[in-house]
Amino acid sequence: MDEITFAVLGTGGIGRRALEVSQHKDALTPVAACDRHGVAVDFDGLDVDELLAATEGNIDNEVATDGGSGGTTAAEGGVKQHGQQRGVVASSQARPSADPIQEIIDRGDGIDAVLLALPNYEHDFIPRTADRFVDGDYAGVLVDVLKRSRVISMLDDRSEDFEEAGITFICGAGATPGLLTGAAALAAQSFVEVTDVDIHWGVGLKSGYEDNRGTVREDIAHLPGYDIETARDLSEAEIESIIDDHDGVIEFEDMEHADDVLLERAGVCDAEDVTVGGILDVRNDEKPTTTTVRVTGRTFDGETATNTFELGDETSMEANVNGPALGYLETGVRRNRAGEYGVFGPVDLLPGF
Amino acid sequence: MDEITFAVLGTGGIGRRALEVSQHKDALTPVAACDRHGVAVDFDGLDVDELLAATEGNIDNEVATDGGSGGTTAAEGGVKQHGQQRGVVASSQARPSADPIQEIIDRGDGIDAVLLALPNYEHDFIPRTADRFVDGDYAGVLVDVLKRSRVISMLDDRSEDFEEAGITFICGAGATPGLLTGAAALAAQSFVEVTDVDIHWGVGLKSGYEDNRGTVREDIAHLPGYDIETARDLSEAEIESIIDDHDGVIEFEDMEHADDVLLERAGVCDAEDVTVGGILDVRNDEKPTTTTVRVTGRTFDGETATNTFELGDETSMEANVNGPALGYLETGVRRNRAGEYGVFGPVDLLPGF
Repeated sequence: MDEITFAVLGTGGIGRRALEVSQHKDALTPVAACDRHGVAVDFDGLDVDELLAATEGNIDNEVATDGGSGGTTAAEGGVKQHGQQRGVVASSQARPSADPIQEIIDRGDGIDAVLLALPNYEHDFIPRTADRFVDGDYAGVLVDVLKRSRVISMLDDRSEDFEEAGITFICGAGATPGLLTGAAALAAQSFVEVTDVDIHWGVGLKSGYEDNRGTVREDIAHLPGYDIETARDLSEAEIESIIDDHDGVIEFEDMEHADDVLLERAGVCDAEDVTVGGILDVRNDEKPTTTTVRVTGRTFDGETATNTFELGDETSMEANVNGPALGYLETGVRRNRAGEYGVFGPVDLLPGF
Repeated sequence: MDEITFAVLGTGGIGRRALEVSQHKDALTPVAACDRHGVAVDFDGLDVDELLAATEGNIDNEVATDGGSGGTTAAEGGVKQHGQQRGVVASSQARPSADPIQEIIDRGDGIDAVLLALPNYEHDFIPRTADRFVDGDYAGVLVDVLKRSRVISMLDDRSEDFEEAGITFICGAGATPGLLTGAAALAAQSFVEVTDVDIHWGVGLKSGYEDNRGTVREDIAHLPGYDIETARDLSEAEIESIIDDHDGVIEFEDMEHADDVLLERAGVCDAEDVTVGGILDVRNDEKPTTTTVRVTGRTFDGETATNTFELGDETSMEANVNGPALGYLETGVRRNRAGEYGVFGPVDLLPGF
């Protein structure tokens, strides 16, 4: 494939790892990265090593809002500031900006794809960010790694806007839904009817809570008694306390995960036939359980069977999010160049069912 | 997706099952089917039940040649003729034809996709059939389920012709390479470098040798001491004798299977890092081993791991060939409608690596 230029919005755990993984992809050139404090743009390609080294430990894990509609931030943690500058601005390639996202939109002509590695504590934060790209006449690919079912319909509501703008929006392109829903869609090909999709993940946080605050906070929102609003309002001490209560190992059942919606909209099965759960071990490298996708269905010749996809326990959450995200990004660019616009789930980019 | 009309060339095991499986796919309407004896065309949709019932046991398993370049047929078996008419002509929807494939080409304007379920004893039979579609000004999708590595390059040689004609050719879209190579490409997404792809299949021939002569003959060509030419020249008695020598269970190692070429051309790994083997049990329904894809690689964070994809033992070879073949066919039509022409492997239709 021809060279692809891309930008990363957000330089937290996912954004940083996406930049790092892209170093291994010949087809991909990262040309812009931003957080709320600043922006780095270089159409010859960012020096990713410098940017990551300079901002190491300088991650902005603050609960994000776009400040546009009275949203407030409740986290007291804010930016981990080890350098002289806050967030990405610690890199010599970056400079402070009052509106970093707008600066990237304004340079959109040279950017084939944008990875939205933004926190998602307000359901509509990513959809509203997409609106800004539409308003800014961006025509290209937007990719997110979101997990929440209800955001998909917010994006679908914008489908016509994306089509008019020439935007190909790939949603949920990380590990799950992205990789695992993709595996489910492929596994479904043996069947004429899928009766059950069971996705069970294990994540060991190699880098611990410190570098994955956003992910942990969002996962806590899936626990009984919490939702996205209450999780957003938790202090870091409260989060630590929840982790302590679970001895560092938090188990999730029947999560509201976009896998169900994405499989249903692609016609693979009903959303209610999809079950997503998992175990998060915040304190250990090792996965507490093997990440497994089981797809059960009926074949045309009347048999019932289960096809299975398993990730090796040594693959980190970061590897399983960022490889697929960039893989789907490449596919999105191909679709975009062929003139296909609108909202696509990972499953839509796989063989039809 | 909008409705898709498709034709099947060949009404042997694969062609018949493709028609049957398509009955479960709302988006697909079979409008034409042919074998060497005749052709059935109905743009309102073939009556698949009638066609399959009328031609049951009437399968043309003759070794195919197109008679165009002095090719000869060595099989003495020929058509199993239970009805009054040979092959597909036993259906009330079909009529005899001196050149059934040409009749389908001539009606190509109404056919979005053509599944080439033709035997492949001459390496260039499918490529030469594709040439006929180019010469006949067909603009649409051609799909094959071939397995031989060397045919891919023959198709690649025609890539420019396909592009000029507006043809999207999807090659190797069956169980393997199709489904299993697709699974390998998806499993590869966790890694930045894939070091080893091991594909090991088990096939129990539910319907026995009688209804799968083409498949068994082609598999025998993979055994040590045989190649495609010697396998083509085997009498049915000789094939039965080979099967007897193996007590019905034939094991294959290091097969020349297109999986290697297709993964390499998509950039996933080197062809030499791909191993394909399997066990065929001609006499039992049950699979002699579980079909498994193992993809080993290195993650961006330095770990080595193996991701695994397993097919449920109850899924028949027929289910695993025809579901994916039709799934890739649908994707091919989508690519074609977006103006993407040329030669695509299954992996090319999955997220980029």
